[in-house]
Amino acid sequence: MFINSARLQQHFEAMSEIGKIGETGTNRPAHSPEEKKAFELAASWMKDAKMKTRIDNFGNLIGTLEGKNTSLPVLMVGSHLDSQPYGGRFDGVAGVLCAIEAVKTLTENNIEHDRTIEVVSFADEEGWRFNKGLFGSKGIIGKLDPEDVERKDANGISRRQALIDFGCDPEKFKESEYKPGSIFCFLELHIEQGPVLDISNKPIGVVSGISGPLWWTVTLKGMAGHTGSVPMPLRKDALLGAAEIMIAVNEIATQVPGDPTVGSVATINVFPASRNIIAEETVFTVDLRDIDLNRRNKYEQQLRERIDSIAKKRSLEYTIREDFNSEPRYCADWIKQIIHNQCNTLNLEAPELMSGPFHDAMALSYVCDYGMIFVRCKDGISHNPLEYSSYEDLGLGAEVLYGSVLEILKK
Amino acid sequence: MFINSARLQQHFEAMSEIGKIGETGTNRPAHSPEEKKAFELAASWMKDAKMKTRIDNFGNLIGTLEGKNTSLPVLMVGSHLDSQPYGGRFDGVAGVLCAIEAVKTLTENNIEHDRTIEVVSFADEEGWRFNKGLFGSKGIIGKLDPEDVERKDANGISRRQALIDFGCDPEKFKESEYKPGSIFCFLELHIEQGPVLDISNKPIGVVSGISGPLWWTVTLKGMAGHTGSVPMPLRKDALLGAAEIMIAVNEIATQVPGDPTVGSVATINVFPASRNIIAEETVFTVDLRDIDLNRRNKYEQQLRERIDSIAKKRSLEYTIREDFNSEPRYCADWIKQIIHNQCNTLNLEAPELMSGPFHDAMALSYVCDYGMIFVRCKDGISHNPLEYSSYEDLGLGAEVLYGSVLEILKK
Repeated sequence: MFINSARLQQHFEAMSEIGKIGETGTNRPAHSPEEKKAFELAASWMKDAKMKTRIDNFGNLIGTLEGKNTSLPVLMVGSHLDSQPYGGRFDGVAGVLCAIEAVKTLTENNIEHDRTIEVVSFADEEGWRFNKGLFGSKGIIGKLDPEDVERKDANGISRRQALIDFGCDPEKFKESEYKPGSIFCFLELHIEQGPVLDISNKPIGVVSGISGPLWWTVTLKGMAGHTGSVPMPLRKDALLGAAEIMIAVNEIATQVPGDPTVGSVATINVFPASRNIIAEETVFTVDLRDIDLNRRNKYEQQLRERIDSIAKKRSLEYTIREDFNSEPRYCADWIKQIIHNQCNTLNLEAPELMSGPFHDAMALSYVCDYGMIFVRCKDGISHNPLEYSSYEDLGLGAEVLYGSVLEILKK
Repeated sequence: MFINSARLQQHFEAMSEIGKIGETGTNRPAHSPEEKKAFELAASWMKDAKMKTRIDNFGNLIGTLEGKNTSLPVLMVGSHLDSQPYGGRFDGVAGVLCAIEAVKTLTENNIEHDRTIEVVSFADEEGWRFNKGLFGSKGIIGKLDPEDVERKDANGISRRQALIDFGCDPEKFKESEYKPGSIFCFLELHIEQGPVLDISNKPIGVVSGISGPLWWTVTLKGMAGHTGSVPMPLRKDALLGAAEIMIAVNEIATQVPGDPTVGSVATINVFPASRNIIAEETVFTVDLRDIDLNRRNKYEQQLRERIDSIAKKRSLEYTIREDFNSEPRYCADWIKQIIHNQCNTLNLEAPELMSGPFHDAMALSYVCDYGMIFVRCKDGISHNPLEYSSYEDLGLGAEVLYGSVLEILKK
C-alpha cells in the first residue's frame, strides 16, 4: 500500500464533525456555512498535498497540482462534500478525501508528472436544497439552464443569493467554465450506495456506467370539500389520485422481476392539509431510472398513460414537469481497464456494475472520458445516517485510485 | 310565508361584516372580540324578538322567550356564530339567525305558548382555535373534560384566559350547566356543507342523524435508502405503504356503492422528504364515518387488517393512534316527521340525509331528542369563503324551522 490509511481515516473522522447530526449522520446543505467549513478543512489538506486551492463562481472547491506541461488537458479527480439533509458520512466525501490522499501520496513520493491534476469538490451534487442537482459539475462544462440560479430553497432563498452569500459571483459564471478539450478525463471514487458489492462480499467495484434518471414533479388538482359530507362518488380527491399514481410507479418499475429498473415517489405536499378537508392539490416527485434507455422510455410512456387515466377517473387536472432527464452514460473502456489492472495488482476481484444513483461524473461524461471506482457500502444503505463503509475498504479504494492516477499520468 | 325573508337577509348581510375577510369570507375565532361583536348584534335582534339575553360562563349567547309555564323543559334552537379561520358566511350563522327569525315571527304574530324557547349561539363549535370543538354545547350538558380549559391556542393563550377575557368565569361552569331533563328537545338548522341537496336540486333536507367520526393518526416506519440504487425487492418504502393504505381506505368505504360511508386520508407528512431518498417514515390521518355504527366497526376492522397486511408485505412497522371516536347520533323520528310535514305544507320535496360533519346537536343528543334542517349549499363547498346558500333557500329553511317550532310548542 502506498497511501496512508491512518491519515485517510483521520480525515474522514475530522470531516464527519462538520454538520454532524446524531452519532453518525451529516447535514451539510449546498452553499451553506457547513459546506464552507468543509471546504476550508479540505483545502487545508489540499495545501498540505502541495495543491493551490480556489473556490470558483459555482461554489466548487478546486485544488490544483500543476504538472510540468500546463498546456496539457488536466486530469480531474473528485466528488462532493455537500450531503443529504439526513445523510451519512461517506457519500461524496469518500471521493474527495481519497483524491486528496492520492495526490498527497504522489507528492510525498516526489513523483514527477507533465499533466496537471485537479481535485474538485463539486457544489450541490445532491440537489435537494434547490430540487436540482449536479450544479457545480454542470456549471464548469457550461451546461446550466438560466433558471438554475433562480430556484429557491424551502426558506425562499434563491440559489443566486445563496451563491453570493457563499462568496461567489453568479455574474461571472463564464470565468469559471472549462474550455472544451481542457479536461483530459475524470475519475470519481464513490461508495456504491447499493447492496451489490456487500452481498457479493467484494470491497471494490469497477463502474460500467450511470443509469439515466428521469425526474418529474407531478401536480394534481381536485376539489376541497368536507370529508364528512361529500359522498365518495362525487369526490375529486387529489391525495387519492396521488396514491394511485404511486402504486402505478411501483407496478411499472417492478413489471419484470429481477430487472434493475427503479421507480420511486419520495416527497408529497398536500393542500390544504386539514384532516377533515378533502385534498384539493397534491404535488409529488417521481424518480425513474434504468440502465437501458429504451426500456426507461417505454416505462415513461406507460406511466404517462396511467397518470392520464387515473386523473380522468378521479376528475383531477394534472401537470407533469420534467425536472431532470438524463440518458445512461457509460465509462470509458480504457479507464475501466486501468482500474481493473490496479485491482488485480492488489489481488482484488472487482466486479463491474452499473450505478443507479447519478454522480458528478455523469455531467463530466459529456466533455471527457470518465471512470468510477465503487467502494462497498454496508447493506447498501445510503442517504441515511446509518450509511457505512469500513476504513479498510476506503483505504483499498484510495490505493486503487492512486494507482489509476499514476497510470493515467503516463498517458 | 310567515317569516320575513327581507329582514332575514339584512341580518345575514349585517353579520357577514363582522370578521369579514375578502369579499365573502369570515374569520370569527371562538371567544374573540369578533365573536363578542357578533353576539352583541345577535343579542340586539333577540331583544327585538322580545327575548332576554345573557352570555353564560362557557361563552354561549342565550336568548330566552319565556312561556306561560316556566316549569316545563325548554325548547332549545340554535347553532354557532364562530367560524373557521378561512371560512364562509353561512356555516353556523344560518342556524342562529333563522332561529331568531322564527322567534321574531312568533312574537310578531302574538302566538301564546306554555313552553319557554331558547335560542343559543354555542361557543367554539369549530374547534380549530384550541383543537377541540363543541365546547359550549358540551359545557351546558356537563360533558367537558377538565383539560378542555387548559388547552392553548397558536398564540399560547389558554381557553381559560380567553374565557376570562371574554367576560366569563371558568370557576362557575356549574352555574351554567342545564339540569337533566330541563331541555325538552333541540332543533338546529344548518347549511348542508355537502353537495347532495344541490345535486338533487332540493333547497331543504331533513337530517336523519349525524355520522360517527373515527379519527386516526397512522405512522408507518420503513427504511431510508437511495432511490437510484436500492433494488425494488429490498425496499421498505413508507410512502408506498401509505399509498396502499389510502387505496384501502377508499376501497373499504366504497365497497357497497350507494352506501353513505365516507373514508378519507387528507394529510400526510413524509420523512426525510428528499426526492431521491426512499421514505423512511410517513404520518397520515384517517377519517372514517358512517351513520351505521355496526358497519363502521366492521370497516374499521377491515382497515386494521389491511394496514397489518400492507405493513407486513412492505416490511414496515406501524402504529395507529385513535384521536376521536364518536358513535352516530340519530334524530328523533317525531321531530323528523314534524319537519317533513312543514316541508310538505310548503310543497317542498325534502330528502332525508345524514350529516357527515358533526354539529352542536351531536352534543345535545346525549340529553334530549333532536332534529336538524339542512339548507342547500352551492356545490357542497363549506369551510371556505366560497361557501354559498341563497337567501331564498335560507328563507325557506327559516319558514320550515318556524313551522316546526310551532308544532313542537303544541307538544
